[in-house]
Amino acid sequence: MRSLLFRRTLSTAARFRLPPTIRQILSSSQADEQVTVTGWVKSIRKQKRIAFGVLSDGSSAVGLQAVFNERLGERVKQITNGTSVCVKGSIVKSPGAGQDKELLVEDVEILGTCDPDTYPIQKQALTPEYLRDNTHLRARTDAIAAMVRLRGRIMRGLNRYLEDQDFAYAHTPILTSSDAEEFFTHPAYLTVSHQLHLEALNSALSRAYTLSPCFRAERGVTRRHLAEFWMLEAEWGVAPTSDPHVQTAALCDFVEGMLKGVDVDVLWRHREHDSVPEAEREKRRDMMKRAVTSDSPWPKMTYTDAIRELLKADREWTYPVSWGSALQSEHEKWLCETLTNPDAATVGCFDLLIPHVGELVGGSVREERIDSLKDSMLSKGMDMDDPRYQWYGDLRRFGGAPHVGFGMGFERFVSWVGGIENVRECISMPRWAGRMLL
Amino acid sequence: MRSLLFRRTLSTAARFRLPPTIRQILSSSQADEQVTVTGWVKSIRKQKRIAFGVLSDGSSAVGLQAVFNERLGERVKQITNGTSVCVKGSIVKSPGAGQDKELLVEDVEILGTCDPDTYPIQKQALTPEYLRDNTHLRARTDAIAAMVRLRGRIMRGLNRYLEDQDFAYAHTPILTSSDAEEFFTHPAYLTVSHQLHLEALNSALSRAYTLSPCFRAERGVTRRHLAEFWMLEAEWGVAPTSDPHVQTAALCDFVEGMLKGVDVDVLWRHREHDSVPEAEREKRRDMMKRAVTSDSPWPKMTYTDAIRELLKADREWTYPVSWGSALQSEHEKWLCETLTNPDAATVGCFDLLIPHVGELVGGSVREERIDSLKDSMLSKGMDMDDPRYQWYGDLRRFGGAPHVGFGMGFERFVSWVGGIENVRECISMPRWAGRMLL
Repeated sequence: MRSLLFRRTLSTAARFRLPPTIRQILSSSQADEQVTVTGWVKSIRKQKRIAFGVLSDGSSAVGLQAVFNERLGERVKQITNGTSVCVKGSIVKSPGAGQDKELLVEDVEILGTCDPDTYPIQKQALTPEYLRDNTHLRARTDAIAAMVRLRGRIMRGLNRYLEDQDFAYAHTPILTSSDAEEFFTHPAYLTVSHQLHLEALNSALSRAYTLSPCFRAERGVTRRHLAEFWMLEAEWGVAPTSDPHVQTAALCDFVEGMLKGVDVDVLWRHREHDSVPEAEREKRRDMMKRAVTSDSPWPKMTYTDAIRELLKADREWTYPVSWGSALQSEHEKWLCETLTNPDAATVGCFDLLIPHVGELVGGSVREERIDSLKDSMLSKGMDMDDPRYQWYGDLRRFGGAPHVGFGMGFERFVSWVGGIENVRECISMPRWAGRMLL
Repeated sequence: MRSLLFRRTLSTAARFRLPPTIRQILSSSQADEQVTVTGWVKSIRKQKRIAFGVLSDGSSAVGLQAVFNERLGERVKQITNGTSVCVKGSIVKSPGAGQDKELLVEDVEILGTCDPDTYPIQKQALTPEYLRDNTHLRARTDAIAAMVRLRGRIMRGLNRYLEDQDFAYAHTPILTSSDAEEFFTHPAYLTVSHQLHLEALNSALSRAYTLSPCFRAERGVTRRHLAEFWMLEAEWGVAPTSDPHVQTAALCDFVEGMLKGVDVDVLWRHREHDSVPEAEREKRRDMMKRAVTSDSPWPKMTYTDAIRELLKADREWTYPVSWGSALQSEHEKWLCETLTNPDAATVGCFDLLIPHVGELVGGSVREERIDSLKDSMLSKGMDMDDPRYQWYGDLRRFGGAPHVGFGMGFERFVSWVGGIENVRECISMPRWAGRMLL
């Protein structure tokens, strides 16, 4: 009876399981195992009586070498780069260099042909700009496919780290409100940050975070900005203190711990592609690895010290440096790429600056004192009694408590971990000023 | 040397760790352990020389009983429901009924007072409508806090299931494109589904999914519709077949396996709140549990059979039934609540109908034949050569392959699993026609 039950469970599970992917076949199939693979052809080399193809299904950076023999006839002639196929055959130990296993194809079905003359993903090196124009197909390149897989892995690591510390994952709104009339009786805006909504949840859940889309109408077109991007944002309650620097230091520690706590070894092994030149790539990779595996705390610098160092620096700035004004990108770049330990640096109270990435994280101790908040809103021409803002005041009025939070641009993190030069290659379908395909 | 290293690692980890939450204290603290807890007071009962409070930090459904003695004086008098506090004390075995452990408070600091007269979250039962008007504070109720935690757990379960089958988690765009001019040189639309973008990724990655916000300008105000909601959508390649019913059946199996594969036992133990009446609640809970733990396949019905049964039914329909027209909610409701095995039912080819929830999942075999797609677009007045649609044609032109996919409304799933009557209580800050707070 028991073994019958066991058998039934097994067959139920098998009914729900999709066939193995190429990643699974490469990592766990046995010699002589019969497999059926659906995928597309990355490349094919045809000889007189035999053809060698590399199949991909996007599940791994490495494709599966498939050997087609002449018995397969006309169908093999139809196969060109990009063709989708379903192949059946057996896995054997590969006699060739470059792979352990290969697939001896016994049957092949052409699922979709691909005209080699007009196929946008040609074999030669394609520029990022060209691939952005072909967003819909660019995940067929190794680099973009690797980036998509990397995003998933990073997300998993961050989720695990935050769950382990009892953070509730919340889905906060994309559409936010203000006054006037429409579908919602007021117009809807796309959110620029989830901080305020997370603060509302924080008043009940104490630790809340989200990884959600955010929107900025950034006119400047840089390699670090997108109009639509994803942001990891977290808010949590902290013990009260008369010295906000204590909370700031703890906030910095938390962010450092999170970035060191993402299973970077796993990420590392899967770092399949870098888009910067070879020599520079090695240097940055080492820097990143040292930063996240370092047992000693990352260098931190107060705002005042940063201004002092910038004023001492023997160079001209586009934006003049003075105590009281915000740091510009050029200042941040100099501080973390020239001045400090290049592992990584927190500069100012709450910005985490990373060489070649710039500001990765911004965080702060939130204002929980209602009077200070009221004053600071007034100084910006906002009245807290305005119905639009009242709820934000309520969070302080009814059992408010000290809390801190941060936001981390997800694409910038992908750019750092993945060694990817431009954030447009850190999201599958990028949007920026003047540009939205698909 | 080794032990030194070990010690250093431990202290590094401690530096990054937030203090324990109430959930962690309740599940793992030792007797006499000293703890510091930051949270808010769910309720407080003051006696002459002692006060009993229940503290919450949102980490668990159960609060922490805190015993305040008279030595704490004036500060305890200030504590009312909703007050935020930081308490220090020791965990002891509770002599009272209802909890194993309690906290003997040695020191308390008031972080934020809460005026008991105007505090919107009063002790008596609050209607869903009232709480929706107080969205910013409603996570302080047990029901909404439980829902937020449940969402996180469901998400984790779904992610784990899909990752295990090598699906790549992708962030597809919220803003989608069409013609004309603006910030993007064309106007941006909010996406109603991520299917088309996932299909593009599918052409490279073979298995891709997303859990992302979607938008619908639904004018109808029902308990099953939101203007902004989250949807789990997946696309994957399948083996070719001349009979699309084979693919449909496999698609249904996959969705069934996924819903059965989410670790429902875990969900079950955490089913902390139901918003429907007691008797009905038990019935639905049992139905749901039977459905997801059932070893036998869920009942499936073809569209033709469904129409036949509806025509035979001895009742009047608001929308007349005829073969060729779409099923309306009233038909779906009757089919899955009256006609069929109430465990759950797939009706028609690709809709999964759940009693009291309605359509939970809709899926289909996608059209990969470019000529059929072209014809069907033309019949809707769309020209595939229009630059807006060309990319979608390219996915077929360059190595297209058979693929299937589905979308599942995340709030509806939360509603089913959590036994929550209205989807507005299945997302922390709901938006629907005429309504957008915060």
